[in-house]
Amino acid sequence: MVKHAGLPRNETGIETVVGVLKQQFGERFQTGAAIREQHGHTTTWIENQPPDAVVFPASAQEVSDIVTVCARHNVPVIPYGTGTSLEGHVNAPAGGICVDISQMDKVVEVNQGDLDCRVQPGVTREALNTHLRDQGLFFPIDPGANASLGGMTATNASGTNAVRYGTMKDNVLAVEAVMADGRIIRTGTRARKSSAGYDLTRLLVGSEGTLCVLTEITLQLQGIPEAISSASCSFPSVDAACQTVMSVIQYGLPVARIELLDDTTVKAINAYSKLSLPETPLLLLEFHGTDASVLEQAEIFGALSEEHGGIGYQATSTTEERNTLWQARHDAYWAMLQYRPGAQGIATDVCVPISRLADCVGAAQKKAAELGLVAPIVGHAGDGNFHVSPLVNMADPEEVTKAGAFIGWLNDLAISMDGTCTGEHGIGQGKRPYLVRELGEATTVMAAIKAALDPQNIMNPGKILE
Amino acid sequence: MVKHAGLPRNETGIETVVGVLKQQFGERFQTGAAIREQHGHTTTWIENQPPDAVVFPASAQEVSDIVTVCARHNVPVIPYGTGTSLEGHVNAPAGGICVDISQMDKVVEVNQGDLDCRVQPGVTREALNTHLRDQGLFFPIDPGANASLGGMTATNASGTNAVRYGTMKDNVLAVEAVMADGRIIRTGTRARKSSAGYDLTRLLVGSEGTLCVLTEITLQLQGIPEAISSASCSFPSVDAACQTVMSVIQYGLPVARIELLDDTTVKAINAYSKLSLPETPLLLLEFHGTDASVLEQAEIFGALSEEHGGIGYQATSTTEERNTLWQARHDAYWAMLQYRPGAQGIATDVCVPISRLADCVGAAQKKAAELGLVAPIVGHAGDGNFHVSPLVNMADPEEVTKAGAFIGWLNDLAISMDGTCTGEHGIGQGKRPYLVRELGEATTVMAAIKAALDPQNIMNPGKILE
Repeated sequence: MVKHAGLPRNETGIETVVGVLKQQFGERFQTGAAIREQHGHTTTWIENQPPDAVVFPASAQEVSDIVTVCARHNVPVIPYGTGTSLEGHVNAPAGGICVDISQMDKVVEVNQGDLDCRVQPGVTREALNTHLRDQGLFFPIDPGANASLGGMTATNASGTNAVRYGTMKDNVLAVEAVMADGRIIRTGTRARKSSAGYDLTRLLVGSEGTLCVLTEITLQLQGIPEAISSASCSFPSVDAACQTVMSVIQYGLPVARIELLDDTTVKAINAYSKLSLPETPLLLLEFHGTDASVLEQAEIFGALSEEHGGIGYQATSTTEERNTLWQARHDAYWAMLQYRPGAQGIATDVCVPISRLADCVGAAQKKAAELGLVAPIVGHAGDGNFHVSPLVNMADPEEVTKAGAFIGWLNDLAISMDGTCTGEHGIGQGKRPYLVRELGEATTVMAAIKAALDPQNIMNPGKILE
Repeated sequence: MVKHAGLPRNETGIETVVGVLKQQFGERFQTGAAIREQHGHTTTWIENQPPDAVVFPASAQEVSDIVTVCARHNVPVIPYGTGTSLEGHVNAPAGGICVDISQMDKVVEVNQGDLDCRVQPGVTREALNTHLRDQGLFFPIDPGANASLGGMTATNASGTNAVRYGTMKDNVLAVEAVMADGRIIRTGTRARKSSAGYDLTRLLVGSEGTLCVLTEITLQLQGIPEAISSASCSFPSVDAACQTVMSVIQYGLPVARIELLDDTTVKAINAYSKLSLPETPLLLLEFHGTDASVLEQAEIFGALSEEHGGIGYQATSTTEERNTLWQARHDAYWAMLQYRPGAQGIATDVCVPISRLADCVGAAQKKAAELGLVAPIVGHAGDGNFHVSPLVNMADPEEVTKAGAFIGWLNDLAISMDGTCTGEHGIGQGKRPYLVRELGEATTVMAAIKAALDPQNIMNPGKILE
């Protein structure tokens, strides 16, 4: 495990706050070891640093009450959605109070005519889409996990659909948030665009709980497309697959999804999902539109992939076939774990300009092989974003060290290609050194904003900035 | 004219800075009355407050030199692009140095494979598109004026294409900026998406020169579509036109432009551009895509408009016809001025949820009629954004007062409909009171950010925040 340094604890303050909140919240305030452990849970290899207590507020006012008392006594506040973040976002290195927003799970309103809705932060992605289905609407952002919309907003989540529908940043119209002094603000309206002052909405999207606790989110929605079709196409090399992706983007083909799986990943999902895909690099696609445009998109893609040596291009003809394909993609993480039993998957993500994707993926494969690591790659290729997940025997210190070195090397490589150290996972604890290498002096501007809006550094301390 | 209060002037500081910059910049530093007047120019009715001098830097380092000396002596810095902003953005209420970036007009690089480019801030929209044409690329944001990309970034410009391609916020990948202490920062990379820390890019986009001077912008580009077609359709009422727009958006039809012109505007452009459009509310459309998809979009639009009583739906068949139609739309402002000779057009913009567009436009027409104002309306209807431009005889104080009251009323109406007081013009001096009414407590968070990043308040003082 990777352990990040603890921060000084304010024992007196914590004790006082625990007393006050216990009084106000009763059974909705928990200090048991198991629940605290669970709320410091990290999906990858970052060691657990549990909070001192977990509180379950039911309203913005209650969140404000919690933050106000924490501010008064200088105690950390750590917002918590579903705990599916990957870089230690919910750890409590200085202890403090975890604010679990799972009970704030109401869809407040859906405005069908405007294709927007307001939700409390604890509504999950799947719950929202279930709620919307009858109205012919959906929310497109899909990070894989059934995360809460609060957590997805806080980390600027994206995923497979981002190539067409953008990231959380493109789909959040406004938020209601409790700031570090307990004030409740609203950052925008339901207007689709605005030039009214500084863009606080997008400052808070992706701020990872370090500036506020989100208490409501206004989201832009999409109409469910008339037609959806899927396809898969194999390639002789990662380079050929990436060249195809570049052609697709340059052509302006409005693919809804274009996912890259390397040969290792294909092997893993063949075994796990009982498929028989050719065990070479693969692109999985989805097209949204009218019946005619979906057909046309599939045809154009076929022609573009052929130019780059695509083999066995196949459109799915039924919903069932489509679901099988995408279920396999969604299960890739579990397939990888089964591919090397006993190993832990350490997910990391980088994002580079598309013209560098083939180079970056190719170099990552070569480097992993050199180090003797098994490291499957899946990518949201249309955005130049990909994940490498070394499968590591955590009992072997040498292998753990190698995996760490590999991840550091990969992040630096992406930065050197004018890319970013994180396309979607966020900085958390794990990526702090890379953020500085990527943006240099700009991180001092981030620190000035943090100091202005949270002068006591109580909001999720030890994340994003050192 | 509307005069905004002057702010205290630091005469000693200004005198010192003028001496220092004259020394460094020679002929590129100007203090003549005419050039100063021109650089305080405002396109609407806000009175000119000229700067003390205008300087023409040629590099980020020179901009940093200017800001550093201004910071040392506590003197305002007012960034200037082409002077086409509409809310007094370039006025100098406390005097100071206008930084005209028109000589920083190089396209630094175009990355065809990645559909992005880096430009200096003085590159104009039209110059960029001329530069890109041979490579099959274009930059879609079109606010009408041939503005500089620096100015468009600083005000979060959008315009007719935003319904499909978004605003500047959606198309700026990163900026290089000189901050209030002269530091040069870069806020992002060429990666298409990133979750690396606070989104400084989108904080600076739309900050109207109050946080930094932009010195370079990384833009996302689009491939020129295979096919472009246009159409126009008349409606018996604004309501019918707006209902059609709502159907189009709900359907998910990817229109590239969908512009609303009210009957007054149609009369004005018929006269000015020698057209014979039916003098009822009109929608102008543009479709981008493949040959087949453009045809399909036009057909679907035809069916949707028919359901709402659209009349005389007509697709243009030639490029010439298309250009005539859009030229007339672009000339609407001049057509309006000719419609009431001697009057001045006072442009204001608001943006509401689409379901409220018909109500808001209808109420604006009714209110203008009640007040006896001639006030043509054009709208980027797909975004719920529209402009009302009362044509005012500035020699008649009563009429000027009425126009002011009308604009105030309209902004408050939009805010009451969960909309915004500005979809694209920005706050500048003119919209400061409405910003507070729209976002309340959130403006104190903006003020805290401003104070943290520009503690002396030298960056374009008196704009956005009171």
